[in-house]
Amino acid sequence: MTFETLSTSRAHGGVQGVYRHQSAVTGTPMTFSVFMPPHEPGAKLPVLWYLSGLTCTHANVTDKGEYRAACAEHGLIFVAPDTSPRGEGVPNDDAYDFGQGAGFYVDATEEPWSRHFHMRTYIERELPELIAREFPADMARQGITGHSMGGHGALTVGLRNPDRFRSVSAFAPIVAPAQVPWGEKALAGYLGPDRARWAEYDAVSLIMAGARVPELLVDQGDADQFLGQQLRPELLRDACEAAGIPLTLRMQPGYDHSYYFISTFMPDHIRWHAERLKG
Amino acid sequence: MTFETLSTSRAHGGVQGVYRHQSAVTGTPMTFSVFMPPHEPGAKLPVLWYLSGLTCTHANVTDKGEYRAACAEHGLIFVAPDTSPRGEGVPNDDAYDFGQGAGFYVDATEEPWSRHFHMRTYIERELPELIAREFPADMARQGITGHSMGGHGALTVGLRNPDRFRSVSAFAPIVAPAQVPWGEKALAGYLGPDRARWAEYDAVSLIMAGARVPELLVDQGDADQFLGQQLRPELLRDACEAAGIPLTLRMQPGYDHSYYFISTFMPDHIRWHAERLKG
Repeated sequence: MTFETLSTSRAHGGVQGVYRHQSAVTGTPMTFSVFMPPHEPGAKLPVLWYLSGLTCTHANVTDKGEYRAACAEHGLIFVAPDTSPRGEGVPNDDAYDFGQGAGFYVDATEEPWSRHFHMRTYIERELPELIAREFPADMARQGITGHSMGGHGALTVGLRNPDRFRSVSAFAPIVAPAQVPWGEKALAGYLGPDRARWAEYDAVSLIMAGARVPELLVDQGDADQFLGQQLRPELLRDACEAAGIPLTLRMQPGYDHSYYFISTFMPDHIRWHAERLKG
Repeated sequence: MTFETLSTSRAHGGVQGVYRHQSAVTGTPMTFSVFMPPHEPGAKLPVLWYLSGLTCTHANVTDKGEYRAACAEHGLIFVAPDTSPRGEGVPNDDAYDFGQGAGFYVDATEEPWSRHFHMRTYIERELPELIAREFPADMARQGITGHSMGGHGALTVGLRNPDRFRSVSAFAPIVAPAQVPWGEKALAGYLGPDRARWAEYDAVSLIMAGARVPELLVDQGDADQFLGQQLRPELLRDACEAAGIPLTLRMQPGYDHSYYFISTFMPDHIRWHAERLKG
């Protein structure tokens, strides 16, 4: 697998890099960003994964996420993958919520998506192996978060891999894609009409089927235009209550779905993960 | 003059807005952003102006500047104007460093620029009047900063208006445009070949001609690709030494010319301005 550095810049005492590699899992080049905080030579640092939302690449949170100061303060590596394979020869859809930029963190089984759209395996296996190999990362200390579609990604990847992640949080996540329009469209398109096969990609279904994490932190703006139809955090709240998973669900008054919302609460999420990734 | 709100979003407890108005000075619609920190009803707050660099609109710093947390903490209004008039009917140039996106904060006298390119008067007179009218701003407490071409703008606007600004700082500014390629091209293009007419748009020339401010703060990355040819902070250092202006010039090791550099030191500039804009 080739691995190349597209850019590095000093930032907040560390280094913000953008990298590209040839992914065997997606069959395409994949770009991602990594912020490496200032650290002692030889140190191995905990890793916080951030999965992005619809239409995004690594660049949105890298530009607008305001995570570097807090990651520098707490000594966390911040990894931001892309949201899908891209490029010529990769199928796409004219809609913003399906195809390129909308991989939904699934391994697609339906044509024409099944050849390249393997974001689950990319996030769960291939990219972590590369991060472990190329960066001074302590892979025994990983946390995961994300926004919207990426909040769905963080919750489902976290719930399926409780041994890998010590901490799971989300910003305005799609908590039950099988029950909302964005998710119904994407899961049907990538996985086919059999809803039983969607369950492993639905946080609420995973919890109801027995998946467990020690706790969850979710921030949600109450002025978010997608709140009632697409996000529905009450479904996660009910599932966590029934399962006994401590959920901190903070409804943030006046906040919308944008990076203005994410960047406001990003430092607090980073502090929260850092506390759980210590030592 | 029409004045319209293009968007507002809650951020860091305040409101990030983007606004547009019909400028009488440029003869075009002009877009700018304002961050209003959380504040008591009826309070009047100090204002920090941020002038952007080549190719930028208000959006670059609004997305990437990481100023909102610090402005919320210190209670500063943050105003980010555009860098030139824009649109159909406005002259332009194919180069990135002249024409639209490169107004250099001058009042152009040369055709075809002299009709619309009046960024000096726009920043010095028209936009402040609008800010004073539309926002709870205490115009007796203003500071100014900027980046690169906008650092040049902040220094020259600040030096020409010491009664208006209590505090002046800059990130990687063009300190002596009359002596460097970017500035020679722009000033000749907008003002004509008579270099005597450039002096009021050159910070080093202004200082040598007697302009004074109480002090200056400048951050400059030592890995900035434009350092030696376009920025030349040593010219500002020498002029300030000769004039007795206390200059804090911080060469920041490893930092480049990007918003990764700006956002790293933005909170410290905001704190520095806030101290000088108190009460």
